[in-house]
Amino acid sequence: MIQQLIGKIQKMNAPIVVGLDPMLEYIPEYIKQAAYEEKGETLAGAAEAIWQFNKGIVDATYDLIPAVKPQIAMYEQFGIEGLIAYKRTVDYCKEKGLVVIGDIKRGDIGSTSAAYAVGHLGKVKIGNNSYYGFDEDFATVNPYLGSDGIKPFIEVCKEEKKGLFILVKTSNPSSGEFQDKLVEGRPLYELVGEKVAEWGSEHMSEDYSYIGAVVGATYPEMGKVLRKLMPKSYILVPGYGAQGGKAEDLIHYFNKDGLGAIVNSSRGIIAAYKAKGYEKFGESAYADASRQAVIDMKEDIQSALVKSGVVR
Amino acid sequence: MIQQLIGKIQKMNAPIVVGLDPMLEYIPEYIKQAAYEEKGETLAGAAEAIWQFNKGIVDATYDLIPAVKPQIAMYEQFGIEGLIAYKRTVDYCKEKGLVVIGDIKRGDIGSTSAAYAVGHLGKVKIGNNSYYGFDEDFATVNPYLGSDGIKPFIEVCKEEKKGLFILVKTSNPSSGEFQDKLVEGRPLYELVGEKVAEWGSEHMSEDYSYIGAVVGATYPEMGKVLRKLMPKSYILVPGYGAQGGKAEDLIHYFNKDGLGAIVNSSRGIIAAYKAKGYEKFGESAYADASRQAVIDMKEDIQSALVKSGVVR
Repeated sequence: MIQQLIGKIQKMNAPIVVGLDPMLEYIPEYIKQAAYEEKGETLAGAAEAIWQFNKGIVDATYDLIPAVKPQIAMYEQFGIEGLIAYKRTVDYCKEKGLVVIGDIKRGDIGSTSAAYAVGHLGKVKIGNNSYYGFDEDFATVNPYLGSDGIKPFIEVCKEEKKGLFILVKTSNPSSGEFQDKLVEGRPLYELVGEKVAEWGSEHMSEDYSYIGAVVGATYPEMGKVLRKLMPKSYILVPGYGAQGGKAEDLIHYFNKDGLGAIVNSSRGIIAAYKAKGYEKFGESAYADASRQAVIDMKEDIQSALVKSGVVR
Repeated sequence: MIQQLIGKIQKMNAPIVVGLDPMLEYIPEYIKQAAYEEKGETLAGAAEAIWQFNKGIVDATYDLIPAVKPQIAMYEQFGIEGLIAYKRTVDYCKEKGLVVIGDIKRGDIGSTSAAYAVGHLGKVKIGNNSYYGFDEDFATVNPYLGSDGIKPFIEVCKEEKKGLFILVKTSNPSSGEFQDKLVEGRPLYELVGEKVAEWGSEHMSEDYSYIGAVVGATYPEMGKVLRKLMPKSYILVPGYGAQGGKAEDLIHYFNKDGLGAIVNSSRGIIAAYKAKGYEKFGESAYADASRQAVIDMKEDIQSALVKSGVVR
């Protein structure tokens, strides 16, 4: 799957991923009204609105982007109905040929992580049959529990040819509270990064491993160090745009081959029609605004990479 | 909710919680067969088997225990159908008067943690209405992202009078890989414990805070230190029984008032009929075996507490 992701990034010249993190406030009124008329102002109505909103964005952008990253929390907040919309979104994106990174940040003790891995990336055995639960292509995972919380995910990835992005340094303001603590003079995130590099080197596809890392765009100096520490790991970079990460900060996350990083934008793409510079689209053309925001993001990153000499 | 939990623990003389972590291999054949006959060897069939299995255990034990702790991963592995069984289990346990600790180990950046908090502990607003998604009483959360990943959970707990157990030192063998790393001479889990104590002291119920911690029974010496570090926090203690934690190790997790800890057992209770000493029950009386295992666990812990002088 990492090869497929890399192939699509190269073909589309787009090291980007669209975060499908729908909040009700991002969704145009006419979509919500139609959904509520059909299913009421209920969990099912909200889930329908989310699904219609997502479908519009996917239809308008899938030919420009290699991947999407739905954030499961934004669906889970609507209970079962929300999770049905999550699954529907995952399935639809895969039908459209997109690589799906499930932003689930799961992680537990061994046997429990195995259950999460099976549910999100693998197949669960029931009697003589086996079934995919959610069937994303990649998942994000939390490393706080150590190796035995991660290895069951790796096992499933190996079997299913899927992949992981392990949280190393997250994009949020308080990420340093524990992640930056110095352990023998080096920040904890570097130790986690070393582990990712170790797991990665043991689980290679071609030039890259299918065990990647999450490093926030909001900490470019740390990104530079982590890039060198995990040379074979793809880095999923959240925090571009709305969270404050700039294109010129992102060049450090790439290798000299022009690969090695994929940058996420959520609000900046899916709620583009509400943002400065995109007013002309209006609510009814929200998906066209998203398409334009994807084009702008591609150009922004591409020009930073060219300017810095990472790519020509 | 922490007061309600403490009240029930005192009334029942049972600082214990039953982990409802059903694996298909734990479920008696006759339950699986009935479920598969009705719904096929499908995700829905597995979910039905899990639900019937859980219901049997809850019916046989609810008068002896204050709380249950369903591990959501064990349901999530069966996709949407599994999560419907999770929700059904949560609702049923609440109907039976049990406190429900959702073992979800979520945690993300602020806005995303807020969505998880709303989905599991609070209400989500849809138009003029608001709805509970999963509606557990407590949730476990992962601290790797720092304060701004935790605070949205605390906010919802404050509003809803619910509570948290934050991962401090987990019970698994590799938990030390990052959690034990020394930061200025002290292990990371102590720093996390200090944060829990700080959040706890700001969010008190009566004698205890509604912000608790998870500390594994498998590390009793660390439990002793953490008990002192977080005097006002309830400690949820996994790892007793099947994972290797013994009753005499658990006394360190309690305060001198005989309170402050609640010990989880999952496999040891729910799959008791498969364990040594409970063979006489047989598969068809699996729920009676679970009841006996609860009685034995209560006595085991009670006698260790008496022996050590924690309670008389």
